[in-house]
Amino acid sequence: MSVQRIVIIGAVALGPKVACRLKRLKPDWDVLMIDQDEHISYGGCGIPYFVSGEISDVRELMSTSFHMLRSPEFFETAKGVRVRNRTRALAIDRANRRVAVRALPSGQEEEIPHDTLVLATGSRPNRLPIAGIDLPGVMSVSNLHQAMAIKDQIAKGEVDRAVIIGAGAIGCEMAEALNDLWGVETTLVEIAPQVLPGILDSDLARMVLHHLEEHGVRVHLNESVEAITAAEAEAEGALRVKTGSRVLDADLVITAVGVRPNSALARDAGLLVSPRGGIVVDGRLRTSDPAIYAGGDCIEITHRLTGEPVFFPQGSLANRQGRIIGTNIAGGHATFAGTVGAFTVKIFDLAVAAAGLTAARARAEGFDAVHALVVQADRAHFYPTQDLMTLLITVDRKTRRLLGVQGLSRNGDALNGRINSIAALLPYKATIEDLSNLELAYSPPFSSALDIVNALGNTAENILDGFNAPIDPEDFERCFLGADPDPEVLCLDVRGPQNAAPFVDRFGDRWVNIPQETLGERLAEVPKDKRLVLVCNSGVRSYEALLQLRHAGITNAANLQGGVAAIKQAGLVDLSEPDQDGDS
Amino acid sequence: MSVQRIVIIGAVALGPKVACRLKRLKPDWDVLMIDQDEHISYGGCGIPYFVSGEISDVRELMSTSFHMLRSPEFFETAKGVRVRNRTRALAIDRANRRVAVRALPSGQEEEIPHDTLVLATGSRPNRLPIAGIDLPGVMSVSNLHQAMAIKDQIAKGEVDRAVIIGAGAIGCEMAEALNDLWGVETTLVEIAPQVLPGILDSDLARMVLHHLEEHGVRVHLNESVEAITAAEAEAEGALRVKTGSRVLDADLVITAVGVRPNSALARDAGLLVSPRGGIVVDGRLRTSDPAIYAGGDCIEITHRLTGEPVFFPQGSLANRQGRIIGTNIAGGHATFAGTVGAFTVKIFDLAVAAAGLTAARARAEGFDAVHALVVQADRAHFYPTQDLMTLLITVDRKTRRLLGVQGLSRNGDALNGRINSIAALLPYKATIEDLSNLELAYSPPFSSALDIVNALGNTAENILDGFNAPIDPEDFERCFLGADPDPEVLCLDVRGPQNAAPFVDRFGDRWVNIPQETLGERLAEVPKDKRLVLVCNSGVRSYEALLQLRHAGITNAANLQGGVAAIKQAGLVDLSEPDQDGDS
Repeated sequence: MSVQRIVIIGAVALGPKVACRLKRLKPDWDVLMIDQDEHISYGGCGIPYFVSGEISDVRELMSTSFHMLRSPEFFETAKGVRVRNRTRALAIDRANRRVAVRALPSGQEEEIPHDTLVLATGSRPNRLPIAGIDLPGVMSVSNLHQAMAIKDQIAKGEVDRAVIIGAGAIGCEMAEALNDLWGVETTLVEIAPQVLPGILDSDLARMVLHHLEEHGVRVHLNESVEAITAAEAEAEGALRVKTGSRVLDADLVITAVGVRPNSALARDAGLLVSPRGGIVVDGRLRTSDPAIYAGGDCIEITHRLTGEPVFFPQGSLANRQGRIIGTNIAGGHATFAGTVGAFTVKIFDLAVAAAGLTAARARAEGFDAVHALVVQADRAHFYPTQDLMTLLITVDRKTRRLLGVQGLSRNGDALNGRINSIAALLPYKATIEDLSNLELAYSPPFSSALDIVNALGNTAENILDGFNAPIDPEDFERCFLGADPDPEVLCLDVRGPQNAAPFVDRFGDRWVNIPQETLGERLAEVPKDKRLVLVCNSGVRSYEALLQLRHAGITNAANLQGGVAAIKQAGLVDLSEPDQDGDS
Repeated sequence: MSVQRIVIIGAVALGPKVACRLKRLKPDWDVLMIDQDEHISYGGCGIPYFVSGEISDVRELMSTSFHMLRSPEFFETAKGVRVRNRTRALAIDRANRRVAVRALPSGQEEEIPHDTLVLATGSRPNRLPIAGIDLPGVMSVSNLHQAMAIKDQIAKGEVDRAVIIGAGAIGCEMAEALNDLWGVETTLVEIAPQVLPGILDSDLARMVLHHLEEHGVRVHLNESVEAITAAEAEAEGALRVKTGSRVLDADLVITAVGVRPNSALARDAGLLVSPRGGIVVDGRLRTSDPAIYAGGDCIEITHRLTGEPVFFPQGSLANRQGRIIGTNIAGGHATFAGTVGAFTVKIFDLAVAAAGLTAARARAEGFDAVHALVVQADRAHFYPTQDLMTLLITVDRKTRRLLGVQGLSRNGDALNGRINSIAALLPYKATIEDLSNLELAYSPPFSSALDIVNALGNTAENILDGFNAPIDPEDFERCFLGADPDPEVLCLDVRGPQNAAPFVDRFGDRWVNIPQETLGERLAEVPKDKRLVLVCNSGVRSYEALLQLRHAGITNAANLQGGVAAIKQAGLVDLSEPDQDGDS
């Protein structure tokens, strides 16, 4: 190929990756990145850690791993990539292969010719259609300017109270950033009935909610914000956030209600854009005009479990797509197969991670979805640093295919290791039997002989094959723990008496304690006229008990998934219990 | 099926798993485990942590996660499994389906009838064919009795010096156990030219060696022990270990030279046993007699990359196989597909993990194997807890198939997460392009936007496609760093002057420093008449420089894989350098 001129619109994540890959493959080519912002090539995902103070200097988000600032000059000298920042792309002239741009400082306009164009226009935050959204002190965290403004305001001591609208990943990260280091009294308002909607099923979301609340974050679910007003009676800058059921005072309001693709430029140029706003691309990341590529947050991609187009803005996908576009423009052949929706976030001391479909989403997509919940030590239970991990998988009943996984742990590396191992299986249509036999490296400091991942597969098998009859923590709350319990439900606690005692004290006759190892000889004591929920610390001994009862003809029993560990994590019981040491 | 009688020979790992699975599926069946030892169902992999003192009470290795001792009584009351410990199986009468056993305390013999037999006879340590191997104070660590004896001897202050024969996983774990908490002066003797032979390629093994030495362990490679004698002139119990080149004094000698399958019982009964000693089983884990199953350390299994039978004793595989055997005996259908050789070990502060084939092994198996080595931050490089991780993949040149991965990190959870994600891909004949696009959950606290796993795939692609021309750290040592350097080789350091300065001081004219971002304008200074090794901190900037030089017609250059980080980790240079902060 002769020397080509490549123009890339957008210089964060995808754009620089395309540019650098191209220059490595085709050093002679002319590669130009333009961006309307002054700042380019920064790690936007690091913004919450900059606001929290964990990252002290914003330049760290704009530097290479070897501490060089990724400035326009860096791209020019180290990479041979030309950069024009503070330059806005106005229109694409496809017929003449030109992009009209305006230099923002001078206002001067010109047209830039090219052979191939790359759209790396990213996304922008959704804007709530409410009064007051433009008031000073109402911010999103979609770029470095806002991040610096927020941090500046907090550091000056001007923020005692903050309201964050939206309890998705960014909202939860910002709640930690404001609350943990700065001590800002923080309230999260979420329109959905749970935190992290779409990412976690409700039982795990409940655990995250409890964790947020334990760290002093107030969370209001099922509430939407109707208006924001300046609270005139109070100090200047103070705001009032009005929801359907309350008014919240705040010095700072952060909106974190999702982002949408920046696709206006593409649409105006007649390129195919989906009804949801994402630029449509093929497997090689070409738009409907093969001389124009697009990637990153401005495109729609294929979900590898449903085959449907989805919008899934992730810096990691943008980087991988950038390399693919670079390879293809240089004359190679590379393809992007889509996403399994791998996701993780740190919220205070808890890591959350997921991949594939939640059970709720799988059902909505038409799968006959079954889920299994396991709480187990994240390494050999006798190894001193072991801690509990919670994982939930979604599987398809008929094909036994793995559809998704989600989990929580205080050890985010251990959790992500498990989630990523399962995520790797999802495109291969792996089954629960594949999960039961998934080969993880084993040594007591890092994993269990029968690792939680294998236990998940085993549990799903046992449920699908009719051996295990599970009940979820939230269903247990509804029928037993809550304000209006079902009088026909009793709890049979198969742990040792020491662990059971506080529950017996609290629930009286409704909480029966027969340790599993004595169940065989005490069958006569098991109530036969009630529905039983079998309980142990994690769901393992109660599964054993369930089978013992069935063998004795007692079939009206269900096994609490995740056991007492799960309901404690969700904050559904609050009892002072002795430690697990001794019996349990 | 009518009620069946099942006898299981061996009650550690596999045996209990078969028994418990069976009783859950078939509560009426009669399941008997026999074991010659007093101790059953213990976590043998935990022995090094018991000896080190990290696990204080040996009963923790014999207890459930809910702190109940897995004694014979526990199996009988909680699981309905009968146990006869201290009972040795003498012979199998296949025609009459009977096992002859001897009760060890009484010496009484009898024959136990059954419908199905399971061999869970495990493995035993290899015995060195040398004089003195039976002396008091010469031990292996294959069971709890020996572990307790060793710990007892150390705790009494009787061990100042120890020699460990064999620098495989157990040998290295024991070196840490003796040295770290107890301060025992420990020497490892290994017949191979590297530590962890067969598990790591030599460059990574060199890094582990350096780590051991930094922690005060003396390591003698390429040495075999010829004899052990009692050192009469010294205190009673003191030993002398004679190798080909030296004599080592020791109060304790531990042999850790591998294990072999216990298959005599099977062989004597006419079952098929491989020339290497493993019992031969089919995919459902049946021996050559379909009424007899076998699993765990006594069998041979299929390597999923070579298709060849291998002996790979792992407690994790035994547990998974146990469930499969239980399912099959109960009339279900479950299969064991083989192993990808997933492996991990903790050695002092370093975690080592691997899966698949090393490059050396792949070449020996006939693959045209290429490897790529990457040293990169294990999470966003701007996130405060980031640390370097080292990974190496082996790939097949023609098919571009992933053949194996190995790695090192101070964060074992982060390392195992990466290794297990790649291990999950190996059975699916995944290619390096699949690795380049492997979707890991991304958030700065846990991963990078372009994670090290993706960087590995990219690097392998660049090597196979002829863009990257790598040189390994050990080759760099041979031609440049070592005592007899090649005068035709120069080093071109493309980092900043601050990082390069100590190297320039040390190597003088042989170490040229031109920062990568200035290379374009300083091409005239690049020596044209020598072979160049390009160096930066990790191999990324030097790759960029390699392509710049090529574009300028300078083709006699190679890129040091893993950069200065790799050669430092391997202890190949020892220079006081400024921190990476500032330039680099």
